[in-house]
Amino acid sequence: MTARELTKDTTLCISLSGRPSNVGTRFHNHLYGELGLDFAYKAFTTDDLPAAIAGIRGLGIRGCGVSMPFKEAVIPLVDELEASAAAIGAVNTIVNDGGRLVASNTDYLALVELLREVDRDQPAVVLGSGGMAKAAVAALRDGGFADVTVVARNPTSGPALAERYGARWAAALGDHRPGLLLNATPVGMAGAREADDLPVPEAALATVRVVLDVVAVPPETPLVRAARAAGATTITGDRVIALQAAEQFARYTGVRPSDEQVARASAISRPT
Amino acid sequence: MTARELTKDTTLCISLSGRPSNVGTRFHNHLYGELGLDFAYKAFTTDDLPAAIAGIRGLGIRGCGVSMPFKEAVIPLVDELEASAAAIGAVNTIVNDGGRLVASNTDYLALVELLREVDRDQPAVVLGSGGMAKAAVAALRDGGFADVTVVARNPTSGPALAERYGARWAAALGDHRPGLLLNATPVGMAGAREADDLPVPEAALATVRVVLDVVAVPPETPLVRAARAAGATTITGDRVIALQAAEQFARYTGVRPSDEQVARASAISRPT
Repeated sequence: MTARELTKDTTLCISLSGRPSNVGTRFHNHLYGELGLDFAYKAFTTDDLPAAIAGIRGLGIRGCGVSMPFKEAVIPLVDELEASAAAIGAVNTIVNDGGRLVASNTDYLALVELLREVDRDQPAVVLGSGGMAKAAVAALRDGGFADVTVVARNPTSGPALAERYGARWAAALGDHRPGLLLNATPVGMAGAREADDLPVPEAALATVRVVLDVVAVPPETPLVRAARAAGATTITGDRVIALQAAEQFARYTGVRPSDEQVARASAISRPT
Repeated sequence: MTARELTKDTTLCISLSGRPSNVGTRFHNHLYGELGLDFAYKAFTTDDLPAAIAGIRGLGIRGCGVSMPFKEAVIPLVDELEASAAAIGAVNTIVNDGGRLVASNTDYLALVELLREVDRDQPAVVLGSGGMAKAAVAALRDGGFADVTVVARNPTSGPALAERYGARWAAALGDHRPGLLLNATPVGMAGAREADDLPVPEAALATVRVVLDVVAVPPETPLVRAARAAGATTITGDRVIALQAAEQFARYTGVRPSDEQVARASAISRPT
């Protein structure tokens, strides 16, 4: 993939994160090229978030992906918080609309979208209490899932997350036998300490009908494999990340890439 | 010239001006490619200069070319003014040294350099009283030219410029017969109202030994042609602009392009 030549008219989009990767940069630049859009994308980090956000305004940067550790800190620096970001108190997308910075959360939007495929009249369990768990619990609540349990060892963040969205909390899965199991922990993620582990005992998967794993790398986690073997439907993390990235892309450019284009761009931008 | 692919590690340099052109963007990106430097350059404009300068700090942008109308307004926004910028109270280059913004003026530096070729023991006349005239008069003073006259119709900026640098002022060339004639007006510039004119009567060129014309487009102005016909040595504006751009380039990247590389990059980046 050859980058387009930068000109004075090229629209710049960026990302801000504590530890930038090349995934977003490759994903967006690939799609700009494929769709013939005069845009360029580059990942940045910053040690001065207010100055970086001022730069988005001052330089007319069109869009900004926001990652850890800036997802909450940017909230007072933008002009408008969309419902998706307000629902979980975290921002992963800023669109600069003629100087007005509008913040949203496309992780939440992607989860809401994917959960439409799932029967909401069954008990749901969310594993974890971090940022993606928060997005998941909010998406379940807003998707009409009535019976939601947060399973998280952390005795502070676990109950706090559950309480915020009217869910229950349990320190461990115990005897819970959910219909939907949503993993929002790093268990199964390449490079993580528990890369080869299951986040729940294998026996607990016997009655699970749907597994949604937010771990995107690899998409085929031990949990996903075990769930398939147990006959469950699976929704893999690469779909979450592709959907949220496509939503960001559409917000920045006004052009919505096809599923095939997103899949190709995701494959190309995957870490090697 | 194919642009390099942007990555998270690519160093960004920018320019800020009221009416961005593609000249600097093409010039710098061409040399980055030729020299194999992981840099990218893009021209921007802004309606909020302090926010744009904050963005240079906040995003770790390495360098910024500054054009009209921001050359004086940026002064209170940087951390350090080099002698070249202090000499004329105008900035055209900002280097971000690990968060410390250091401002300089490479137009001045280029004129100082080119005036080394010229005998300073002869009367010099500078035509004009704008930004380039200021850089020229300062460069003449600092280059040891003792007899300098500012010729400018403007009855305010003309005398003010002359007084600031210990030069004389005249509203018109009159009987002045300088050895060095330095044109810092737009007369002769492509697209200007006086594109086909001489800034002085042709007869006045009879005794001139050196003509320096800051007009870069075209390099062969009516003044340069007439001066050559009259037997004078000429220093053309494309050399001024190439030298100042090379100086900027070296400050941003730490790499000094050769004269041949600068000439090629200048040819490629010329407006068409």
